Amino acid sequence: MKNLFLFPVALLAFCLTGFAQEALFNAQQLISPEVHEDKTVTFRLFAPDADVVEVTGDFLPTVKVETPRGPMDGPGKAKLTKDDNGVWSLTTESLGPELYNYSFLVDGFKTTDPNNPFLIRDVATATNVFIIDGGHADLFKTNDIAHGSVTRRWYDSPGLDMDRRITIYTPPGYEKSAETYPVLYLLHGAGGDEEAWINLGRTAQIMDNLIAQGKAKPMIVVMPNGNVIQDGAPGEGSKNFYKPTFMIPNTMDGTYEGAFGDIIKFVENNYRVKADKAHRAIAGLSMGGYHTLHISRYYPNTFDYMGLFSAAIMPREDATGKVYSNFDETLQTQMDNGYELYWIAIGKTDFLYEANTEYRAKLDAMNMPYEYVESEGGHTWRNWRVYLSQFAPMLFQ
Amino acid sequence: MKNLFLFPVALLAFCLTGFAQEALFNAQQLISPEVHEDKTVTFRLFAPDADVVEVTGDFLPTVKVETPRGPMDGPGKAKLTKDDNGVWSLTTESLGPELYNYSFLVDGFKTTDPNNPFLIRDVATATNVFIIDGGHADLFKTNDIAHGSVTRRWYDSPGLDMDRRITIYTPPGYEKSAETYPVLYLLHGAGGDEEAWINLGRTAQIMDNLIAQGKAKPMIVVMPNGNVIQDGAPGEGSKNFYKPTFMIPNTMDGTYEGAFGDIIKFVENNYRVKADKAHRAIAGLSMGGYHTLHISRYYPNTFDYMGLFSAAIMPREDATGKVYSNFDETLQTQMDNGYELYWIAIGKTDFLYEANTEYRAKLDAMNMPYEYVESEGGHTWRNWRVYLSQFAPMLFQ
Repeated sequence: MKNLFLFPVALLAFCLTGFAQEALFNAQQLISPEVHEDKTVTFRLFAPDADVVEVTGDFLPTVKVETPRGPMDGPGKAKLTKDDNGVWSLTTESLGPELYNYSFLVDGFKTTDPNNPFLIRDVATATNVFIIDGGHADLFKTNDIAHGSVTRRWYDSPGLDMDRRITIYTPPGYEKSAETYPVLYLLHGAGGDEEAWINLGRTAQIMDNLIAQGKAKPMIVVMPNGNVIQDGAPGEGSKNFYKPTFMIPNTMDGTYEGAFGDIIKFVENNYRVKADKAHRAIAGLSMGGYHTLHISRYYPNTFDYMGLFSAAIMPREDATGKVYSNFDETLQTQMDNGYELYWIAIGKTDFLYEANTEYRAKLDAMNMPYEYVESEGGHTWRNWRVYLSQFAPMLFQ
Repeated sequence: MKNLFLFPVALLAFCLTGFAQEALFNAQQLISPEVHEDKTVTFRLFAPDADVVEVTGDFLPTVKVETPRGPMDGPGKAKLTKDDNGVWSLTTESLGPELYNYSFLVDGFKTTDPNNPFLIRDVATATNVFIIDGGHADLFKTNDIAHGSVTRRWYDSPGLDMDRRITIYTPPGYEKSAETYPVLYLLHGAGGDEEAWINLGRTAQIMDNLIAQGKAKPMIVVMPNGNVIQDGAPGEGSKNFYKPTFMIPNTMDGTYEGAFGDIIKFVENNYRVKADKAHRAIAGLSMGGYHTLHISRYYPNTFDYMGLFSAAIMPREDATGKVYSNFDETLQTQMDNGYELYWIAIGKTDFLYEANTEYRAKLDAMNMPYEYVESEGGHTWRNWRVYLSQFAPMLFQ
């Protein structure tokens, strides 16, 4: 019988799948991005026929971009240089610790990096990412420590009349332990879904690292889907593959908040949890911060910890759901019932900054206690990953 | 307090995350691919400055491509046409049911489709996908039926001296049941990892659908990582983000097969399983078929069901691991011990076709029983999804 693996070429051929076959015939075996020891980064792209190749991403200083609302911060660009082999490259300055995103522009056409398989989807856009380690970015890495488990499963939501997909992080040791655990409900923003926090947010890595360092208590993190017209993320729900869009306003009409009890019930019936207020936290970003505000008020004696990350605040005027009908009284009741932490964080250039300032004034006027963190930057995952890293250690202590 | 959501422009601005912000400033809000009722598909791309835009993918007839081993089948190409707005488009013929993959070529530069967020990674290449439903492709869709759970967790492998990541599918109702279940160990090919079967293979959808239709028994499906130098998939393991490559030969030196008992032990200690030979199956594609062959022989009284999908067969001559030391005797012992099914499937144009023919001749010569399926096509996920759909219903009946 012939030995198939004697020759390098046969060895290569062995690896040809339908996709990889194409890759082999076309790909230049370039490394891009290459992160060097000194934290500079080299981007490379094979495009011999292109006239201009640029890279754009959040590792570059932002530039002002004209929009219908006036100038806003947009991503910067930098030009790559072509060598004799048709390979374009650029090496950056030394970069600080962060999980960065970037794209290439080939003669103005925006594309992913064919040599970087790491892509994160936000709404309908898949974007390449890379990590510069050190500092807070080490929390985003998989380190050689004990790991929790991440499960995608389905729960019954009578309030929305459907089975729905949900992502659950259980901490290291959960399966073998007889203990009960506290729960953080962690909500995504507009355009996100039950994949957002686990992928863009690096929740599993952040929680594993914080728990291993003794900075956060072992807890269950529940990441539901806040879009009431979806049973699961695009590609994972019963609508299968379709181009997702922003789903406001029907994700902010009170329906989701009203049915949130289904999620709590599912979690408390299916996991070993401490099912009391002292061991429930809820937090979310942007629309998820809005959901946090309204859910924690609508279920006023349910959560001891609230986190509003770059939160939207006020309901639309046409949102007449029962959840919004007595904002002030329920907020007062929530305060009167007491809680451990009401945490508000926002970036200085966030377009929701003013709304949050006004909301804090409202809380101040009624003497409702909260903690406030103001960061640099705007309405970005960069901030939300950091907010989670700051918020989780304050829970259940 | 201002109502932020009165104006469409504010509503849009609300949705701006760091990534989405870029998307909004750049993306044409095109739908691509658009699958029409008559199963024709329209691809669209905004590239006003391009001279030639083509699409390449496995929905097109293959063409002969020159390689060092002689002509091989490569993916076909078709040209798109530009309209006055700079949008290129092409509508295909009516396509048969399948999960297809494709890429664009913009002036020869290969790129993903910026309007299609659905990408599947194979080795280091991310490729867009779409589904034409009907027939066998309906098994690849999420339908409105009971769903199993998919968990990524970590297990201890003393045989490889590391904690390793693993993907586990548990069938609908597992969590609430007191029953014990049979187990299918499902192995990936060279270049794959514990993400391959669940993503490229659509295992959760296939199993959910087969179980709902009463065609397969509820079973646990265990998808480990066969690359002994990885603790987890690229981006998920402790090496974090790096460009993955083919890892032969060290994934086929006997180490993985020798340590496979760690995986069985983990599963049987952590899940409610029927821990006997009659309720264990093992199958794999390509390198995973090779692992299946050698593991089922090396643990000769452990599995009643074997599936070799487009399998590699013979060890390299320099693979001197103990696992390979007495191939013929252990195969004889495996036969003498008896089993329910030894299933071999391969495509007519697979480069491993001849090796499988020779292996079947060897089995014939020793009167070792097996079932054989010969399909159209080659060494592709298209075949492997179908093989799983055919194999799973034969198990544990």
